[in-house]
Amino acid sequence: MRIGVLTSGGDCPGLNAVIRSVVHRAVVDHGDEVIGFHDGWKGLLECDYRKLDLEAVGGILARGGTILGSSRVQPAHLVGGVERARGHVADLGLDAIIPIGGEGTLKAANLLSEAGLPIVGVPKTIDNDIASTDVTFGFDTAVTVATEALDRLKTTAESHQRVLVVEVMGRHTGWIALHSGMAAGAHAVVVPERPFDIDELTTRVGERFEAGKRFAIVVVAEGAKPREGSMDFKTAGTDIYGHERFTGIANQLSVELERRLGKEARPVILGHVQRGGTPTAYDRVLATRFGWHAVEAAHRGEFGMLTALRGTEITMVPLARAVESLKTVPADRYAEAECVI
Amino acid sequence: MRIGVLTSGGDCPGLNAVIRSVVHRAVVDHGDEVIGFHDGWKGLLECDYRKLDLEAVGGILARGGTILGSSRVQPAHLVGGVERARGHVADLGLDAIIPIGGEGTLKAANLLSEAGLPIVGVPKTIDNDIASTDVTFGFDTAVTVATEALDRLKTTAESHQRVLVVEVMGRHTGWIALHSGMAAGAHAVVVPERPFDIDELTTRVGERFEAGKRFAIVVVAEGAKPREGSMDFKTAGTDIYGHERFTGIANQLSVELERRLGKEARPVILGHVQRGGTPTAYDRVLATRFGWHAVEAAHRGEFGMLTALRGTEITMVPLARAVESLKTVPADRYAEAECVI
Amino acid sequence: MRIGVLTSGGDCPGLNAVIRSVVHRAVVDHGDEVIGFHDGWKGLLECDYRKLDLEAVGGILARGGTILGSSRVQPAHLVGGVERARGHVADLGLDAIIPIGGEGTLKAANLLSEAGLPIVGVPKTIDNDIASTDVTFGFDTAVTVATEALDRLKTTAESHQRVLVVEVMGRHTGWIALHSGMAAGAHAVVVPERPFDIDELTTRVGERFEAGKRFAIVVVAEGAKPREGSMDFKTAGTDIYGHERFTGIANQLSVELERRLGKEARPVILGHVQRGGTPTAYDRVLATRFGWHAVEAAHRGEFGMLTALRGTEITMVPLARAVESLKTVPADRYAEAECVI
Amino acid sequence: MRIGVLTSGGDCPGLNAVIRSVVHRAVVDHGDEVIGFHDGWKGLLECDYRKLDLEAVGGILARGGTILGSSRVQPAHLVGGVERARGHVADLGLDAIIPIGGEGTLKAANLLSEAGLPIVGVPKTIDNDIASTDVTFGFDTAVTVATEALDRLKTTAESHQRVLVVEVMGRHTGWIALHSGMAAGAHAVVVPERPFDIDELTTRVGERFEAGKRFAIVVVAEGAKPREGSMDFKTAGTDIYGHERFTGIANQLSVELERRLGKEARPVILGHVQRGGTPTAYDRVLATRFGWHAVEAAHRGEFGMLTALRGTEITMVPLARAVESLKTVPADRYAEAECVI
Repeated sequence: MRIGVLTSGGDCPGLNAVIRSVVHRAVVDHGDEVIGFHDGWKGLLECDYRKLDLEAVGGILARGGTILGSSRVQPAHLVGGVERARGHVADLGLDAIIPIGGEGTLKAANLLSEAGLPIVGVPKTIDNDIASTDVTFGFDTAVTVATEALDRLKTTAESHQRVLVVEVMGRHTGWIALHSGMAAGAHAVVVPERPFDIDELTTRVGERFEAGKRFAIVVVAEGAKPREGSMDFKTAGTDIYGHERFTGIANQLSVELERRLGKEARPVILGHVQRGGTPTAYDRVLATRFGWHAVEAAHRGEFGMLTALRGTEITMVPLARAVESLKTVPADRYAEAECVI
Repeated sequence: MRIGVLTSGGDCPGLNAVIRSVVHRAVVDHGDEVIGFHDGWKGLLECDYRKLDLEAVGGILARGGTILGSSRVQPAHLVGGVERARGHVADLGLDAIIPIGGEGTLKAANLLSEAGLPIVGVPKTIDNDIASTDVTFGFDTAVTVATEALDRLKTTAESHQRVLVVEVMGRHTGWIALHSGMAAGAHAVVVPERPFDIDELTTRVGERFEAGKRFAIVVVAEGAKPREGSMDFKTAGTDIYGHERFTGIANQLSVELERRLGKEARPVILGHVQRGGTPTAYDRVLATRFGWHAVEAAHRGEFGMLTALRGTEITMVPLARAVESLKTVPADRYAEAECVI
Repeated sequence: MRIGVLTSGGDCPGLNAVIRSVVHRAVVDHGDEVIGFHDGWKGLLECDYRKLDLEAVGGILARGGTILGSSRVQPAHLVGGVERARGHVADLGLDAIIPIGGEGTLKAANLLSEAGLPIVGVPKTIDNDIASTDVTFGFDTAVTVATEALDRLKTTAESHQRVLVVEVMGRHTGWIALHSGMAAGAHAVVVPERPFDIDELTTRVGERFEAGKRFAIVVVAEGAKPREGSMDFKTAGTDIYGHERFTGIANQLSVELERRLGKEARPVILGHVQRGGTPTAYDRVLATRFGWHAVEAAHRGEFGMLTALRGTEITMVPLARAVESLKTVPADRYAEAECVI
Repeated sequence: MRIGVLTSGGDCPGLNAVIRSVVHRAVVDHGDEVIGFHDGWKGLLECDYRKLDLEAVGGILARGGTILGSSRVQPAHLVGGVERARGHVADLGLDAIIPIGGEGTLKAANLLSEAGLPIVGVPKTIDNDIASTDVTFGFDTAVTVATEALDRLKTTAESHQRVLVVEVMGRHTGWIALHSGMAAGAHAVVVPERPFDIDELTTRVGERFEAGKRFAIVVVAEGAKPREGSMDFKTAGTDIYGHERFTGIANQLSVELERRLGKEARPVILGHVQRGGTPTAYDRVLATRFGWHAVEAAHRGEFGMLTALRGTEITMVPLARAVESLKTVPADRYAEAECVI
């Protein structure tokens, strides 16, 4: 068999582990040939690739990033993108393509699959918001990095007698905020799924100080928003150069909490550290299993499918279903966490 | 409601997170009273306990060990143990008991439950071998610690051109060996579920050197054994004081591999570092959820049950079922890992 | 002897290790009595303290923050502050006071010392800018945290083909920027000691891209500034609420680099994570030695002095000298680092 | 200039950082050519090397091990070794050789230097026992790894109510034991410099239990020995195959303490994890500085010298002096640590 693999979209710990696993399983066990396209779909569209043998994937299991590079180019963005992809697949004699990517990538994968290309997708997002799998690799690393930061910030918040408003990743869903907030014992967690009431949040943090505590940690997902009318909120501001820029929720929330509580409040924006670097053991195992099962699905001719974790098993689910909806944090998880506002 | 909680058996990262969660949910949300028995079942049998309020569990979420202490005493070990426990439960007016422990503890819990005591169990083992739950807390921390050690050992093995035989925990099952071996890219993994053939292992490691590699990492679970007749193996040896002592598999395996391969081979026994210290974010979240759901089960009157993770949900399963059998590594996981001998 | 100890100023990993060491040495070895003032000088001025015995310092060695609390109150800020301090020292029968703090605290300590109080200072700053000691505890932890973040950011910068401008602590000196930049292999380091030329910085980063590299990491100390006239620079901007706020150098630098290079550039501001949480082994050892030697100095009657590291030895230096000047990064360290602009 | 570099002896975190730094300084700043000999002196003696350019050292700063390989071969071991080395240096037109290694390597370097070869040495040992430098790279990483293990072991020792005897590296000196013991708050530290009295050690640990504590941590350097006559001690035992093997001090000490105290005591042998893997930020900075200064010394024609840290400065010291004596832990450091027996 001849298999093409590519990584598309933002950085995510575990990408290299998937690539390595695909090569190990396909080349060593099945005697396949594997090529890697450079910079995601761009490589497929421009026929830019290299051969991947055991040597090529030596020592990459624990390394962050992707040896293949990535980009945000999607086939549908380009005139004739699907046709071009089909042509290159035919020219290269590929029997299967394994794209590793997030929501946008999987939609593109589904498009190509519907156009008849032999696709087996591997889901990738640190946000954990893909509905058809229990967990995506990269999520555990993001939560781990955020939790380690929160552990450190607690002693500083306490020493300085402050409220710290810590912004973690999550544009549409609050999974990272929820898990890191639970793991670090945050005093309030604000998620995109449930627009927050600033009065309620102020009360909750205020009660902590009234009870004699000297600090509070509020974890907020970057995509969180106040309930309509609850507080003044600018989704975009003007930066020092007069450019329109997204003005982070943590900045606004800390200003507002400081004003209302009369306590120093400071924002901390964890940013890109959550999505780079060496993956946790959990993510390496999950990524490795996804890669292995993607090769197996290709050999069984199960195309138009996506690898997914269900309980402790890796199963295959239709790509079409995977891109239908986002996996948001269900309401009963708020109750459990006891800190979601 | 009045709830008693206790921790029993060996150390396991996440015990304090369960205790804290039980207290938070019960005291803050339900207005319950919670007491903690000291040193496991011993505390219940000797009526040795203290009150647990919010103050008592402050700052323990990320701390290893257990603030309640532990012991290996089981009620059935003592004459009249069950009766004594029943008496103390009555005297203290307890409506529920939440024991947190491993296989032995859960068997004791089942015994007490069958004797009519109101028990909700929480499973605990770094070995991940309890059948009724997808994962137990403590396991992720153990795998993480083992993987970090393996990451470090790789460069040393390479610099010294050696075989390193790394012994990880797992008396009856190979979960820690399998996951840490996969996460660190070990070249062979030896598990208790499948007695190994020393010739096969030697061949596998030898092929690596023939292919020009300069080192190999073999991960072996402490409970692993050679296939009958495959090699001389002493389950117990005599130490320097003439005492009979368990002689580690890593020691014997490294001597044997060195002899057969003509390459330096050294044992490394990770030991207790795998079961202590601060839990990973994953384990803190899982432990917190177990604690929360144990309290909920108690309030619903669901006794004789155990908290369990199934997929992403926490469910309750009968204690009786939980203690029936061990969860061993299934054969299809060996294939996936590609390194299990 | 009766000794009072206090911690003053911002959070710094190792404070608890000093407190513990003072208590161990004084109480166990000398049979002294130790009291700890709450919230820095405030505790001394308001006579708010508690007794510190072995029990009180159990388990704090590895913990971030300070069990005594801290504040930014300095004796000279208060009318009659020095007199009040003197009165309380007399009332409490203190033979020595050990204040642990940064530049401001040491100035206050010097003031009190000149007023005749028996002071032995312990220097504390993550910035490493106290001239009389080779290193201060907290610095190694800050550098370690920044380096771990930089390690992670590298793979993301590469995957996203971006310039990342990473702001680390250091208002007046570039020690953290220099060491973390060297440790992580940053491509440019910008320090407060040497105002940077934006053209030079742009050229340096640009050359990297011309050489075919796909990303660059610029580490910038928070107090860094452009050479006069080199680029438009606002030391304060207006936030979304119209408040004057310090506008971070990383924000401005990334906007400017993006404009000049035509490459995506993004700021990452590490912030408070650098100054909280568990200290590194290095900092725990240094802090422990400082505490031990402070007690010894008190017993020898060496007051008006400060503990200091010189090579591998702990020595005592006059407080007066310690507060004269800041230890800036010397020019020959720029050359060595090869990445300082 | 044409420079040869090699790494010799056991693994040590920071080797790659030195190699990278030599190449960066020599190639980029001086326009030199750099070659790297494979497997230490063996590469020089067999003229086995490769060119090292910027590409060759890309991404190795944070990686453990050495890209050049290592061996324990020393020139004096081979008939005509010095002459052979001299011949290859002439043939290759080398103006300088930078060997990076420990005591044995530096002795060989001194020998070659006395024979007229242009040598600039870089000291390397995790043991920190080279007299002419305040610190060697690799030491901080070893101490950090040991301290993290000790932090984890404390909670387990406490939960299991045991004495843990933790063996760390250090054949001749107790630096790692001292620093990790201080950093982790060990209850006793046993070093090779001071043969221990088993009665004294038993008393010390016993007093802890009498004072109501439930566990104790004893850190012991691998080279530690009991005072003559103090206890039965076998420096070599017979393993299960009848081979003479070094029998670890931790094993014997734990058996002895268990017998004397009537408390469970268990050995933990940290082993190779202390000497491999990614270096700490501290070690990366020190290694980078050593590499830079070695190149500078070569350009100044300062041969027969060794890079050394003195305070915060890198200085050059004569190789001959460096190999005269071992840097042992001085007695006043025992007092400070308060835990050395």
